[in-house]
Amino acid sequence: MAATPKAVSRLIDAFCRLPGIGPKTASRLVYHLLRSGREDALALSQALAALHAETMFCEVCCNISDQSPCAICADPGRDQSTICVVEAPLDVLAIEDTGRYKGVYHVLHGHISPMERIGPDELRVKELLRRLGEGKVREVILATNPTLEGDATAIYLAQVLQPFGVEVTRLALGLPRGGDLEYADRMTLSEALAGRKRL
Amino acid sequence: MAATPKAVSRLIDAFCRLPGIGPKTASRLVYHLLRSGREDALALSQALAALHAETMFCEVCCNISDQSPCAICADPGRDQSTICVVEAPLDVLAIEDTGRYKGVYHVLHGHISPMERIGPDELRVKELLRRLGEGKVREVILATNPTLEGDATAIYLAQVLQPFGVEVTRLALGLPRGGDLEYADRMTLSEALAGRKRL
Repeated sequence: MAATPKAVSRLIDAFCRLPGIGPKTASRLVYHLLRSGREDALALSQALAALHAETMFCEVCCNISDQSPCAICADPGRDQSTICVVEAPLDVLAIEDTGRYKGVYHVLHGHISPMERIGPDELRVKELLRRLGEGKVREVILATNPTLEGDATAIYLAQVLQPFGVEVTRLALGLPRGGDLEYADRMTLSEALAGRKRL
Repeated sequence: MAATPKAVSRLIDAFCRLPGIGPKTASRLVYHLLRSGREDALALSQALAALHAETMFCEVCCNISDQSPCAICADPGRDQSTICVVEAPLDVLAIEDTGRYKGVYHVLHGHISPMERIGPDELRVKELLRRLGEGKVREVILATNPTLEGDATAIYLAQVLQPFGVEVTRLALGLPRGGDLEYADRMTLSEALAGRKRL
């Protein structure tokens, strides 16, 4: 369109490539940046340029970090005999947020999904098995998502972990705290029933 | 948090400064960019750096453009005697999108709002009056938003435009096409009634 400067439409296109940002949101962001002044746009630009340059994968847990081994793997206060296996770096943050876990992590960077042609070789499974080969691990907590793909990944990992003779656990399924029984979906309620505990 | 690399949290902060993007959305965007590879992040970074460098305000209509006068103001096919006054550059795009307007624009870059301490001096009103001083304008369409602030801005402009003896009009208010009478708000329905037309 004649009314849109090239620099504007190029930035709109770049924003549109991000998940959950459509053309309307993208143009609102761009015109906000035009209004709010040069500094905000440049700060975002520089932070983006630094993102890959200043981060790396931790050679132990495969999480994204600014050092390798990462701060958690290098922390002598963490229990190196318990590994919590998650799909993504954001899952590590969620578990750290609870303040209830003192072990270490392993980030798979995805889940097994035949539909998306993602098998174990596309995930950081080799790296996990190498860590177990060192013989110091006692328990592996499979904290993949409670989804079809997360379950498939957990079942696969449980199989390949069997020869190592470590304890393999999975996060509990049930009603979310603060939820309403009336609005719980059938699957969640079934899991909560099946996993009921004696008081 | 120990688990978040500095480059990641800096980019999360920069995204959070954008409207409608909270910490959760920001971290999802950042980890998406980490996963999707270096090129997407660099393309976005470069487009942001170019945004202010490659755009300017049109000296005639005050719209954002990559040349001055902008493509619309410089177009001999546009009717220079009709000026449509809007609050923001996105409003120009919306009106252009209709394909029904052949005049030129004037972008105020805001609306009068005593609450936000925005008066006429903070808007591009002087520039509008200068254009009218040239004596070639026949009609000014006040296309500020149908809000309290947009109305206040239109009423103010109608006053200061009076001495120029040009026709001053305002966009029609009424039911939006495709809407449902049952769900129309009271204000809109009142305007639609008051503005009813003989068939």
